[in-house]
Amino acid sequence: MRYPLLSRINRPGDVKKLMPEELPVLCEEIRSFLIESVSATGGHLSSNLGVVELTVALHKALVLPRDKIVFDVGHQCYTHKLLTGRRAGFAHLRQKDGISGFPCPAESDCDVFIAGHGSTSLSVAIGIARAKKLKKEPGKVVAVIGDGAFTGGMVYEGMNNVGMLNNLIVILNDNKMSISKNVGEIANYLTRLRTDPKYFHAKAQMENALESIPVLGSGVVRVLQGGKQIIRRGIYHSTMFEEMGFQYVGPVDGHDVIQLSQMLTNLQEQAAPLFIHIVTQKGKGLKPAEENPGEFHSVSAFDLNHLTNPEVSPKDSFSSYFGAKLSTLGNECTKLCAITAAMKYGTGLQFFKHDHPDRFFDVGMAEQHAVTFAAGLASQGLLPVVAIYSTFFQRAYDQMIHDVCLMRLNVLFAVDRAGLVPGDGETHQGIYDPAFFSQMQIETYSPANYAELDHWLSYLVRKGQGPRAIRYPRGEEKPSMAALGCTGNLFDLIEQREGAKIVFVSYGAETEEILAAGDLLLQKGIAADCCKLVRIYPLPEGLCDALKKYDTVIFAEECVKDGGIGQQLCFALQQAGWTGRFVLHAVNNRHLLHANVPQLRKDQNLDAASLAQSALGAESENKA
Amino acid sequence: MRYPLLSRINRPGDVKKLMPEELPVLCEEIRSFLIESVSATGGHLSSNLGVVELTVALHKALVLPRDKIVFDVGHQCYTHKLLTGRRAGFAHLRQKDGISGFPCPAESDCDVFIAGHGSTSLSVAIGIARAKKLKKEPGKVVAVIGDGAFTGGMVYEGMNNVGMLNNLIVILNDNKMSISKNVGEIANYLTRLRTDPKYFHAKAQMENALESIPVLGSGVVRVLQGGKQIIRRGIYHSTMFEEMGFQYVGPVDGHDVIQLSQMLTNLQEQAAPLFIHIVTQKGKGLKPAEENPGEFHSVSAFDLNHLTNPEVSPKDSFSSYFGAKLSTLGNECTKLCAITAAMKYGTGLQFFKHDHPDRFFDVGMAEQHAVTFAAGLASQGLLPVVAIYSTFFQRAYDQMIHDVCLMRLNVLFAVDRAGLVPGDGETHQGIYDPAFFSQMQIETYSPANYAELDHWLSYLVRKGQGPRAIRYPRGEEKPSMAALGCTGNLFDLIEQREGAKIVFVSYGAETEEILAAGDLLLQKGIAADCCKLVRIYPLPEGLCDALKKYDTVIFAEECVKDGGIGQQLCFALQQAGWTGRFVLHAVNNRHLLHANVPQLRKDQNLDAASLAQSALGAESENKA
Repeated sequence: MRYPLLSRINRPGDVKKLMPEELPVLCEEIRSFLIESVSATGGHLSSNLGVVELTVALHKALVLPRDKIVFDVGHQCYTHKLLTGRRAGFAHLRQKDGISGFPCPAESDCDVFIAGHGSTSLSVAIGIARAKKLKKEPGKVVAVIGDGAFTGGMVYEGMNNVGMLNNLIVILNDNKMSISKNVGEIANYLTRLRTDPKYFHAKAQMENALESIPVLGSGVVRVLQGGKQIIRRGIYHSTMFEEMGFQYVGPVDGHDVIQLSQMLTNLQEQAAPLFIHIVTQKGKGLKPAEENPGEFHSVSAFDLNHLTNPEVSPKDSFSSYFGAKLSTLGNECTKLCAITAAMKYGTGLQFFKHDHPDRFFDVGMAEQHAVTFAAGLASQGLLPVVAIYSTFFQRAYDQMIHDVCLMRLNVLFAVDRAGLVPGDGETHQGIYDPAFFSQMQIETYSPANYAELDHWLSYLVRKGQGPRAIRYPRGEEKPSMAALGCTGNLFDLIEQREGAKIVFVSYGAETEEILAAGDLLLQKGIAADCCKLVRIYPLPEGLCDALKKYDTVIFAEECVKDGGIGQQLCFALQQAGWTGRFVLHAVNNRHLLHANVPQLRKDQNLDAASLAQSALGAESENKA
Repeated sequence: MRYPLLSRINRPGDVKKLMPEELPVLCEEIRSFLIESVSATGGHLSSNLGVVELTVALHKALVLPRDKIVFDVGHQCYTHKLLTGRRAGFAHLRQKDGISGFPCPAESDCDVFIAGHGSTSLSVAIGIARAKKLKKEPGKVVAVIGDGAFTGGMVYEGMNNVGMLNNLIVILNDNKMSISKNVGEIANYLTRLRTDPKYFHAKAQMENALESIPVLGSGVVRVLQGGKQIIRRGIYHSTMFEEMGFQYVGPVDGHDVIQLSQMLTNLQEQAAPLFIHIVTQKGKGLKPAEENPGEFHSVSAFDLNHLTNPEVSPKDSFSSYFGAKLSTLGNECTKLCAITAAMKYGTGLQFFKHDHPDRFFDVGMAEQHAVTFAAGLASQGLLPVVAIYSTFFQRAYDQMIHDVCLMRLNVLFAVDRAGLVPGDGETHQGIYDPAFFSQMQIETYSPANYAELDHWLSYLVRKGQGPRAIRYPRGEEKPSMAALGCTGNLFDLIEQREGAKIVFVSYGAETEEILAAGDLLLQKGIAADCCKLVRIYPLPEGLCDALKKYDTVIFAEECVKDGGIGQQLCFALQQAGWTGRFVLHAVNNRHLLHANVPQLRKDQNLDAASLAQSALGAESENKA
């Protein structure tokens, strides 16, 4: 048996049966299991390797599901899943019908809350802790949050509302970085706390000394007596977290599982919300991940013997293509600035940072600040490009409206991971941005290949006006899309077949599926044309005229249905007097799987077969 | 002449010509002017009375427009407007074609940024300060932010990114409350800073004492020697703001204009970002406002001799009606909780707080936390009602999607100030919520009178499932709307006229205008029916069937056009095979005035006359 201890852990509470000295062995087994398993399936690795001991200690000390663990950016929950009976599920991690890579209440009553976006755990935990108080239920609520997520404003909003919740424990997992290297004043502050533990160890000694200062002394002592409050403050209110109402414990070695579990067991009686600061190493146990945790943040299946470095060999992807091109544009356009929210590599901005370090800004996991900071830059004549994943732009919805659009400022939103996103599932789909950019009247471009990205990014930097957006999918361009090249038109009828009465319309990566649907129909002897939009908002002039000749328009988009581009096109066609049949294929956001993109499209009726089926249905109704 | 000094201030820089001893007199004149002027026009009062001295001191010390002042929640900018040549404009403050109640770059080059939402100033100021560095421009950038706005997470995201910007000054205007009484840990912390100034005054004395401690001493001194770092920390890193990288100055009396202007003048050379903590009194100079600044936060024109207390005599408004009803529902439904983001009075929740204090939560200006905290409560079986203005719900767009909708949690969003909002202008319009609730597939109700609010609020509390929203306008119900009562239907054909081929459709307060438009048409001999929706998402079953018989549908909504309810209805009718004419009247969010609601509707072609005109146009085209 390869994992003798781990194989004895089959349900919540089994960890509690282990002897303290067995815990480190269990941790090593878990670590080996995770490396082996994730190298086969892909998944989040570095963060999970960092919290093995913490999670084991929590399970040893707490009683689940009475007690609740809320994982911030839930992808660090793998050990938790292993300890709650889901070991077998790791063979199909993040795959369709397999277990999710995030906490999932549907999988286990030990998973209390879905979380894929950062900085939410404290607010959730406060809600749960407050509910326990109102319902007079026993038990602790633990929020586990990394130092990366600690750069998001929600954490602070939560800290401002901890009140006197003595059933709340916040564990700061300080691994000295978030996804990219951590930035900002909070990171500096944590470093000071970490590196000068004597502030904390000396507490008791100092307090004794203060107590013994006589009321009247001579010289130095008299002055110190007068300043006793200051000293007391220096000792007792020594951390920002104490200022915010917590009882602070730390820094603690986050890889000493025995000490951690003892400490957590001892903390059952608490007078105030607890703040436990543990120090861990991201990627712990896998040398290349320890040295370069950014690369191992979220991985595809990989070969442990052949590892790459993101700085020198970026993957072939829209993100890298975007990043390289933007850096080139930065040479000629000296007012160009680039902003990322803790995703330097993910957005391909490492190139821009390398070439234009003074115009590159990583603001941490702070999308709201990213957008409003950009607005401030733009108000002074600079041209900021804010590169953020579609799903995280949701965080800055109001800032786009209030701080950028009201003044029509020159800000370019570069929307990465637009459309369906594999693996991560419901929390990370890029399916809202076409709808919200439309609402805000932000001009939006959706290239389907690198050539179009190149052309339109250049255009938007050189000639754009006001708020504007360019969106592109995760991963690399598809051969069928690359073959289309770039016409420079705002839309193209890319297939025009004799006698076609049906037209498929789409944009971005989904264009692949309408082309394939057209081919499928042709095999059945039905001619259908294909139209591809690059500018999706506002709809290009001439588009309605080009589409009016068709009986049937079948629109497909990787975007929510209500408020998406399809409904807007239907409205435009209706306004233009067209009375044909409009069939809309869009994303149902109440039902989002974790799966690969082809599976997601199939599930959402966005695959070629489903689109062709719609066309056949329309065709037969027309005949009837 | 009633304002001898103020009348000499006609352009930026004029304040600099005054002698220091004239400054207090100027401040008194400004205060009198503001009270007199705002009592005639309405506007924000308390906050402006609090920052008179600060603003005068800033204008005395800075050089505008080279230096930039960024006002957080810009409604505290009245003194700034007075000092930059806009005194005459106060006769038409917040009125159509008059001056705005917020900073407005179109009015003056001394207004650098529009700001109506809170907690943005630091991010904007960092952007401007960084731009100055990149462009090698001289000058200071000052962010003026109240302690209320300091409860919003964006402030913290900004603080995390101040870097070494030695041209940045943050002034915390600590008036011990935001709009309602301030809440939370930050407020407690500021109170500690304020009330124990000896922490700061004693600094120099303590440092001298430390320096004089001999390396080897006896007893107490030896222990203290070992703990010198702790003491130094107690003295020098004594505030959270210093931990975040600022140089902290304070607390300073914010009503001592001579001291303030001297201090600001002396701070021209700074090594790091400065954080100046000033203490002021909101409503300073107007006794009733000093005693009850919440009531005088934003006022209509008022009679100085007859002032009311919001605790005992709430205004007749949807907000108060909602608040009273919710409190009643809280008696029977013990799992009901109510959450506000610093708007207890504004949302009418003072009733709920009074009756159910343990289930009432004011989280500060922290809409993100409000929604996710609600999600935490809901995950444990409680039913939280989150009452926030429509425009501020924009802040929690992602939290609604990610933390509430993914798990289909039982959270009721109570959307106050939905639709067009008078006076405040472009920053406060409630024109996005129908679009974003639709995108998220959140069931949404839009009552037009108190009877409907009563009925549907009860329904949503007692029988609702999952995320759900109820939205209602600012102010009181209109007589014509009250007359409609409540049928309990999801939509009603409220006017049905013989032979009508045209139907007006609307929802919420705008229903008033379609009824009036129908009457206008009748005067011209044209019969048009009127249809009113209560549930706007999803569209009620049977609605399309009811509308299909008309040739022309004229839809009017106080919501953005793209992604709004009108386009969705058009799509639904198209899908139902209807081929009539659809005319959509909606809000153009690129052109938002500050004006009263009738003026706003007229400007947006949402008034009865414009709607009737559309009907006439459709009618004549039909004949042609």
